[in-house]
Amino acid sequence: MPSALILIADGTEEMEFTITYDTLVRAGVSCTSAYVPAADAASQNTTSLPCATGSRGINILPDQRFSPQAAAPANYDLLVIPGGAKGAETIVTNSPVQHLVRAYMQENKYVGMICAGSLAAKTAGLPKQPLTSHPSVKSQLESDFEYSEEPVVVSGRLVTSRGPGTAFPFALTLVELLCGKEKRAQVAGPMIFPPETFA
Amino acid sequence: MPSALILIADGTEEMEFTITYDTLVRAGVSCTSAYVPAADAASQNTTSLPCATGSRGINILPDQRFSPQAAAPANYDLLVIPGGAKGAETIVTNSPVQHLVRAYMQENKYVGMICAGSLAAKTAGLPKQPLTSHPSVKSQLESDFEYSEEPVVVSGRLVTSRGPGTAFPFALTLVELLCGKEKRAQVAGPMIFPPETFA
Ligand SMILES: [Cu+]
Repeated sequence: MPSALILIADGTEEMEFTITYDTLVRAGVSCTSAYVPAADAASQNTTSLPCATGSRGINILPDQRFSPQAAAPANYDLLVIPGGAKGAETIVTNSPVQHLVRAYMQENKYVGMICAGSLAAKTAGLPKQPLTSHPSVKSQLESDFEYSEEPVVVSGRLVTSRGPGTAFPFALTLVELLCGKEKRAQVAGPMIFPPETFA
Repeated sequence: MPSALILIADGTEEMEFTITYDTLVRAGVSCTSAYVPAADAASQNTTSLPCATGSRGINILPDQRFSPQAAAPANYDLLVIPGGAKGAETIVTNSPVQHLVRAYMQENKYVGMICAGSLAAKTAGLPKQPLTSHPSVKSQLESDFEYSEEPVVVSGRLVTSRGPGTAFPFALTLVELLCGKEKRAQVAGPMIFPPETFA
């Protein structure tokens, strides 16, 4: 059974987080969410597990706190970095996360980034390659990457996407890469997309 | 500022809940989530607020426990019942919720139901009218309603939809009804739907 680690922080876009996690679970992917505390958070040194307050105020209890050891690419097939301006800032500026992104790429594991989460490609120092993001952070990425405006961009093991409106095709692309085209169709069917969209 | 009460239970489909709540918040609608305990739940008589465990295992901390008094149509412009088989069963078989659905309709407030949440139209005894739902519960609804397979069906103040794949058009339709067409377009823009979808 493939497995995925999905990062979450205060300010994470809760639709991008939830659509990705839920769709992967529907495909039989074992999902774990890990809370990344803000650099200045009082919770940095505690061991308690707080709810992450999403960008629009939904409180989500993560499965665990982020630990670089537990998050290692030996333990998961996919690492996902969701957007939400404030949540993405916390995640992409975290240096153990930056190290982890490079480690996943080196170990030939998948890394998914959506919305402002795509900034992790830059902060982790990934090489120039095709990528997309939310338009609001395009200017921070276009000189270092081959910037695309496609809803989902697959560049080797790096999968990037644009916003909540592209979260379903992003999640279904991850399902296809981890579990195959047939599983993608099996998962999309009962979700009842309108004709001509996504499925 | 319009306001919405969004019900949640253990087993609620977390994408349908999150997409609706988040999209309404983006439109400036004041959203409150209220936890409906299962009929057999030990938590029935407690005052603590547990996380609701969604249908795919995401734990969401609701804003408050469901209380028929606080949920009254005098306090909100919209009541939303999400799907997820087990969560919808808990919500639609709850007799104070059934009473509330009738009260919202009588007071000319909006009621949104998506996926298996549409079963509330039947359990609340709403009159025969156009409606849709997840296909898995169609057989329980088609003799009592004018069953449609459109992604979103607006019947007066009753708005119904089909599943996670129609949750964005469902939420954007609720935005349009509460806040107008212009607000719908303003909210959809930054969500970055792929061309030819939803927006
Ligand atoms: Cu919680």
